[in-house]
Amino acid sequence: MGVHAVLLDHAPRAGDIARISGDDAHHALRVRRLGEGDLLALRDGAGLVGTGTILRTAKHDGLWTLDVRVDDARVLPPEQPALHVLACAPKGERLADMIDGLSQAGAASWAPLRTARSIVDPRETKLDRLARVTRESLKQCGRAWALRIEPPVDLLDLRRDGTLAGAIVADASGPPYERRGGPALTLLVGPEGGWTPDELAAMRDAGATPASFGRHVMRTEVAAVVAAACVMHLERPAP
Amino acid sequence: MGVHAVLLDHAPRAGDIARISGDDAHHALRVRRLGEGDLLALRDGAGLVGTGTILRTAKHDGLWTLDVRVDDARVLPPEQPALHVLACAPKGERLADMIDGLSQAGAASWAPLRTARSIVDPRETKLDRLARVTRESLKQCGRAWALRIEPPVDLLDLRRDGTLAGAIVADASGPPYERRGGPALTLLVGPEGGWTPDELAAMRDAGATPASFGRHVMRTEVAAVVAAACVMHLERPAP
Repeated sequence: MGVHAVLLDHAPRAGDIARISGDDAHHALRVRRLGEGDLLALRDGAGLVGTGTILRTAKHDGLWTLDVRVDDARVLPPEQPALHVLACAPKGERLADMIDGLSQAGAASWAPLRTARSIVDPRETKLDRLARVTRESLKQCGRAWALRIEPPVDLLDLRRDGTLAGAIVADASGPPYERRGGPALTLLVGPEGGWTPDELAAMRDAGATPASFGRHVMRTEVAAVVAAACVMHLERPAP
Repeated sequence: MGVHAVLLDHAPRAGDIARISGDDAHHALRVRRLGEGDLLALRDGAGLVGTGTILRTAKHDGLWTLDVRVDDARVLPPEQPALHVLACAPKGERLADMIDGLSQAGAASWAPLRTARSIVDPRETKLDRLARVTRESLKQCGRAWALRIEPPVDLLDLRRDGTLAGAIVADASGPPYERRGGPALTLLVGPEGGWTPDELAAMRDAGATPASFGRHVMRTEVAAVVAAACVMHLERPAP
């Protein structure tokens, strides 16, 4: 396992002392059993990649805090390409699994998508809870930038605002995905029941093109993670 | 949604009458509300791709049966390339998610892998229950051949039996995966804590080569599904 990561609310400088409290402090000290002198990875979800050393731990009124000396801290640019995923929300725990998987796959953002056959209304996706999933996932997978959870969008509106020009539509009707290039890409993933023929035609008219990511029907949350991972793999910058 | 699929225990011929009972009959008639004259997709998990029409339904002692006239039936060869996944079993429900995901990604088989840092003993993976997951997944994702669940293997033994020659080892130390070609491939995915340096060295000595499938640390079940899907995507036969 790598060095345990904690989240700071802002990027510090080397030599600073940062204070960690709340769940992060409890988890580091009581679950991971870390203590004075142990190393921590430092993240802020906005590019920070740092390390620090635990200087002091304290408990007041049952709450743990720990002070970390920042040994080094740098801020990385966002991952390239920036992959924006618009995907229908699956039901229940499968939504959190999808968000965690998109985070591990390196997507830049996710927005819940409303389509003709969507089952879950994007307003019901409990975006606050998902922000917590992205923070936990970032600590576990080592990302510098957190997956952004964006407001719900309606496919009908996207057809008019230019978002679909050049977008990738995950659909079995398309040829296997091949590298497209560019600094930013938009990927659309439909609901369990698939896109309607009208939706596919309208997305094509608006400049989006379908691509397939496998020969079998995938559940929405698997399709989104697999498609995002394949795109990031094929679009990786030259070494 | 596609046509609802049922599993037969052997491949019929066009014109045959096949009888469906048990959970499959109950699900088709009571959950999917199908009835006489409705179409069914027919699968047997061993290559059968057929369609049939419901002729009769009956209920005896509370148990449903339905008779299906087989309209057409053909047997497809196994998917190419045949991807054999050897992956450490994650804990709890995540194992079933991994099996379902590997099935959707088109892997040919999965065997639980024992390594130095494996958490779950492969003997405890309840292989019977997983066979049920592969059958349900096949019906949902449209595969002709079921993902095979194979007996547990120990990495120590594999180093001696030739399995590792040409195998792909999912690991961040490797270059991004590129198409290798060939009719069959073996993919090894390590446990949550990663491979030990000794394991990586021994796998290289035995002819396996590491490859990466993303820039971030992935949970075992996400890593296995993403790596399998990327391999199947890049290794797809020429059209």
